[in-house]
Amino acid sequence: MSTPTVIESGPWAGWKTWPQDTFETGTGPFYSRAEPGRGVVCAFIAEPRHMNGGGFMHGGCLLTFADYACFAIAEEYTVGGAVTVNLSGDFLSAVSAGARMEATGEVTRAGGRLIYIRGMITADGKPALSFTSVVTKVNRDRAG
Amino acid sequence: MSTPTVIESGPWAGWKTWPQDTFETGTGPFYSRAEPGRGVVCAFIAEPRHMNGGGFMHGGCLLTFADYACFAIAEEYTVGGAVTVNLSGDFLSAVSAGARMEATGEVTRAGGRLIYIRGMITADGKPALSFTSVVTKVNRDRAG
Amino acid sequence: MSTPTVIESGPWAGWKTWPQDTFETGTGPFYSRAEPGRGVVCAFIAEPRHMNGGGFMHGGCLLTFADYACFAIAEEYTVGGAVTVNLSGDFLSAVSAGARMEATGEVTRAGGRLIYIRGMITADGKPALSFTSVVTKVNRDRAG
Amino acid sequence: MSTPTVIESGPWAGWKTWPQDTFETGTGPFYSRAEPGRGVVCAFIAEPRHMNGGGFMHGGCLLTFADYACFAIAEEYTVGGAVTVNLSGDFLSAVSAGARMEATGEVTRAGGRLIYIRGMITADGKPALSFTSVVTKVNRDRAG
Repeated sequence: MSTPTVIESGPWAGWKTWPQDTFETGTGPFYSRAEPGRGVVCAFIAEPRHMNGGGFMHGGCLLTFADYACFAIAEEYTVGGAVTVNLSGDFLSAVSAGARMEATGEVTRAGGRLIYIRGMITADGKPALSFTSVVTKVNRDRAG
Repeated sequence: MSTPTVIESGPWAGWKTWPQDTFETGTGPFYSRAEPGRGVVCAFIAEPRHMNGGGFMHGGCLLTFADYACFAIAEEYTVGGAVTVNLSGDFLSAVSAGARMEATGEVTRAGGRLIYIRGMITADGKPALSFTSVVTKVNRDRAG
Repeated sequence: MSTPTVIESGPWAGWKTWPQDTFETGTGPFYSRAEPGRGVVCAFIAEPRHMNGGGFMHGGCLLTFADYACFAIAEEYTVGGAVTVNLSGDFLSAVSAGARMEATGEVTRAGGRLIYIRGMITADGKPALSFTSVVTKVNRDRAG
Repeated sequence: MSTPTVIESGPWAGWKTWPQDTFETGTGPFYSRAEPGRGVVCAFIAEPRHMNGGGFMHGGCLLTFADYACFAIAEEYTVGGAVTVNLSGDFLSAVSAGARMEATGEVTRAGGRLIYIRGMITADGKPALSFTSVVTKVNRDRAG
């Protein structure tokens, strides 16, 4: 989408984020970096503001992080911009405030226009959301 | 999940919301009411804070509204509480700030534990997200 | 895909099928026609050969019929050929041999390349599978 | 589902199948076995009868194999029987007759009633279908 910024200091020093993305910045911010043997790792800390009425992380928060993660994982394939075609999530376990959230995944196919991603969000290492997504490079199918 | 509140004045007078849901209140708030011939209608106004880096509504915002809508649509079947098992969204068109967002849908099956919902989010009447979801009544499969 | 054939006699007279599709012909055949007020209607009769080890229709049979139905429903938008990008099905109820299976649905968006469909399969009128699909026009993203 | 049979001779000697599943036997048969380091591996050979009108494997055939694979992968968790709640597939590449089809995957969560699976189908080693599924133990939510 837009240009990522690398955090220079603090607990997320060395991680990237997309500050121009207003919704992501407001929901997260979410951070990502490449780690040896794990590929792109996305992360944030679960806070009370991410919780639903039952006291657990809202499904929409998990799906927002998943959508973010898909673009972070597929960043090299979507340089000119891309938009989500489909996103599907299977909710595996409840997440409480304070948990360290991480998302990892892989590009399962990078076609000329369509990019397929699948991944997993964990909370303190425990699987929380299994997700799959298809995105398409922009100014193609979803404009207007 | 928790108890809905009916708005008493202002532009959303007569609509319900779930103020105890911190994430929804922060992302929306989202509102719902039953309308003759349409069933449960959910709504909010798209604002700049809902947009992604490209200037269109973030996929996570649409999915959060979809997740909310599923519980509003299925409210009568989930009195004791329920959690999302699966949510899948197909992104049909880009949404800009200022649009009136609405979600409607139907319960396609209400089983003993599993409730199935499908619906559509529109932006100023134009289809934006087609969604399906399965939710399960709580203290069953997803606890802990 | 290929050219449909209109059945000339027997119980399916007036319905179309795609005889060049070996897998569909072997699994079905499946039939479709436009009906006033319902759009494209797809149909076949459930037989013992469609059942799983538990005596109910196999999920794969329902999904095969759904995949067929998506192309029948979207036929006017996929004249030059198209392939499935994503298909998702929610299983609503068990189906027994002898049931009349029908599928109906709608194109929720027809973009330049991507076509989105959602629909419902019923068995003797009872909802059995809710499905959504994205297909892409061919010789584009999924070739080889 | 039902009791698997171990093949005693021929090219699939040592592999299991479910001969009581009429639809699977007619579409496949499909075979499975545990392999060191890979978990449960499912396999069959693509034949002309599995192809669509365009000469490539029908999406319904891939989804049928995926549905089969989910039960093979989750066999230890579904001893008393289970039925599919949701199955979603992303189609990654076209498959031609003659290819050796394999499916592998993992149980991402085994709850009291709901079992979550994700996996990948390959054709001669090339990713063809990425799938996710939720199944529920039987005589619970989807009976009649």
